[in-house]
Amino acid sequence: MTTVDTPFALLDTARLDRNAARLRDRLAVLGVPLRLHVKTAKSVEVARRVHGDGPITVSTLAEAEHFADAGYRDVLYAVGLSPHKLPRVAALLRRGVRLTVLLDSTAQAEALTSFAREEGLRVPALIEIDCDGHRGGVQVTDPALPEIGRTLGDNLAGVLTHAGESYFAYTPETLHRAAQHERDVAVAAADVLRGAGLACDIVSVGSTPTAHAATDLSGVTEVRAGNYVFFDLVMAGIGVCTTDDLALSVAVTVIGHQHDRNWVITDGGWMATSRDRGTQAQAVDQGYGLVAHLDGAIIPGLVMTGASQEHGVLSTRDGSPVPDLPLGTHLRILPNHACATAAQHDRYHLVGGGTWTRHRGW
Amino acid sequence: MTTVDTPFALLDTARLDRNAARLRDRLAVLGVPLRLHVKTAKSVEVARRVHGDGPITVSTLAEAEHFADAGYRDVLYAVGLSPHKLPRVAALLRRGVRLTVLLDSTAQAEALTSFAREEGLRVPALIEIDCDGHRGGVQVTDPALPEIGRTLGDNLAGVLTHAGESYFAYTPETLHRAAQHERDVAVAAADVLRGAGLACDIVSVGSTPTAHAATDLSGVTEVRAGNYVFFDLVMAGIGVCTTDDLALSVAVTVIGHQHDRNWVITDGGWMATSRDRGTQAQAVDQGYGLVAHLDGAIIPGLVMTGASQEHGVLSTRDGSPVPDLPLGTHLRILPNHACATAAQHDRYHLVGGGTWTRHRGW
Repeated sequence: MTTVDTPFALLDTARLDRNAARLRDRLAVLGVPLRLHVKTAKSVEVARRVHGDGPITVSTLAEAEHFADAGYRDVLYAVGLSPHKLPRVAALLRRGVRLTVLLDSTAQAEALTSFAREEGLRVPALIEIDCDGHRGGVQVTDPALPEIGRTLGDNLAGVLTHAGESYFAYTPETLHRAAQHERDVAVAAADVLRGAGLACDIVSVGSTPTAHAATDLSGVTEVRAGNYVFFDLVMAGIGVCTTDDLALSVAVTVIGHQHDRNWVITDGGWMATSRDRGTQAQAVDQGYGLVAHLDGAIIPGLVMTGASQEHGVLSTRDGSPVPDLPLGTHLRILPNHACATAAQHDRYHLVGGGTWTRHRGW
Repeated sequence: MTTVDTPFALLDTARLDRNAARLRDRLAVLGVPLRLHVKTAKSVEVARRVHGDGPITVSTLAEAEHFADAGYRDVLYAVGLSPHKLPRVAALLRRGVRLTVLLDSTAQAEALTSFAREEGLRVPALIEIDCDGHRGGVQVTDPALPEIGRTLGDNLAGVLTHAGESYFAYTPETLHRAAQHERDVAVAAADVLRGAGLACDIVSVGSTPTAHAATDLSGVTEVRAGNYVFFDLVMAGIGVCTTDDLALSVAVTVIGHQHDRNWVITDGGWMATSRDRGTQAQAVDQGYGLVAHLDGAIIPGLVMTGASQEHGVLSTRDGSPVPDLPLGTHLRILPNHACATAAQHDRYHLVGGGTWTRHRGW
């Protein structure tokens, strides 16, 4: 692994396996199947390792096409559909992929229904329900909900919620409440549709924080989660994991020192870590990431505090002298946000050897 | 161009040409040649268009190799050298590339000299001089400067400064002072080396802000700049360009609305724009970017205020109602930081048709 030139994405498969087993065990107790979100790793090898060829969630149609090429047949595209993407959706359906799309407006439903009729296809669609004001979705009380359902006709497949605000929940109680609310809103939305005489087979919920905090998922048919395969400092900051669970890091090399400023300079800048500063608003700001030895042992008090394109600056949180890290020393940077950091890399180098692929693009 | 699926990187070559001509004209007056930094565009087509096959600066050895494959023969690798990268440097030199490296410590100079001797190669090196405490480099008064020069022996090629703090200069006067200081420190460092009986052929300075603010570059042998080919909102914020000069944008599509929150939602999230929030500390925080119609006309008051991985949220700066942008509308997002936004894409789609490549990796 150290023969690869730094910076590179380093993946600890022992931690990956542990993270996967943890969620698998939780969902087995709750009795709800996982629909893995592949947007974090964007890697067929990671998906196979943690989830076999089970149902997946994607964030782009390019991911759907890539995973379809690898044999995945049950795919949810969980970003609101722009009608101009319908021909790509149809092409996947005609390949035999059970692709489900997402929408939250009558305009989208009308475009989909009209396209489906012209093409002689069923295009299964979930209605996105807003449970916490995070992003998209209709309110469960909005008359638009049954109207969208009716407009979809037999393309209606169910409802979906995503508790995106749970990323800003900081106690076990608020996380648990977010999970309960995400479930309650999804089930209530399904009841609205059923009360209007419409079918609602799928009741989909999820996010990494709520998947780990839920205790009752009755009425839910699937849980989506993706970040949990790697975890990151944002997740550690809200208490969903510990820093020992972080499976992804960036391997870097010391290229200089500024002794007067108590800085160690590395060859890993924001191009390698991303510009994500997700812990900036948390109780503990982790800068651009924590620093560990190449074997994974965290160096206490050392933080990546600065980033140029190809330079990282490491310094101590309390201003104490930086440890002796001579020119050429290899280190790991533990990322704020695994989805963003992984996106800077085309492959994963495994601890112990070997590489796994990563997909990108739209 | 609108047949490509959004989000995609959109490049306006008319603006690119105008930006290139502006710096070319400036440097002609100053009488100093340009060494284009290719780290912003990472595109052979962009480099050819603005600079022919002239001397270039790179931020990674992968860039050096990629541009060498395309015929570039005068390349400066302007990130402090880790000795473990020396075999890749030697391979480029043996291909006939005049590759120059950068360092700022005796330890690096010793490793380089010893490697060069063993390999029977001259490995030309510049000594990085710190002019503003931004990142790496030795102080011009530090006894280490002539010591590094002596250690390098005939590998010594010159000195380099980079006024990285000029990105935080906000008036024409402070920009001009930063440019003058960058030049003065570089020339003083060259004088220190020459005073110690050492040769110092190359005196390299530059950054996009200082390249546009310098009025006297006597004693300087080359100017480095890269961002200026695209410019961005950070550069507009410090007054080096206007928003009309921005050549790079991200084309996105409206996928939804949250009328109660006065939001327009697009299919361009941080995966398409990057997480860079470079204007956050400027006088005007531009969020994740300004919004323009697909033809380039800026929509006054509309800002990309939120970003998930594949969702952008547009809202108005003053809370006035968002303009009518129906489902399916195509828009441009003007980026905070062109280097970071371009890095999220594998190619540039040109206004008027065609695509140009972009390189990535290390």
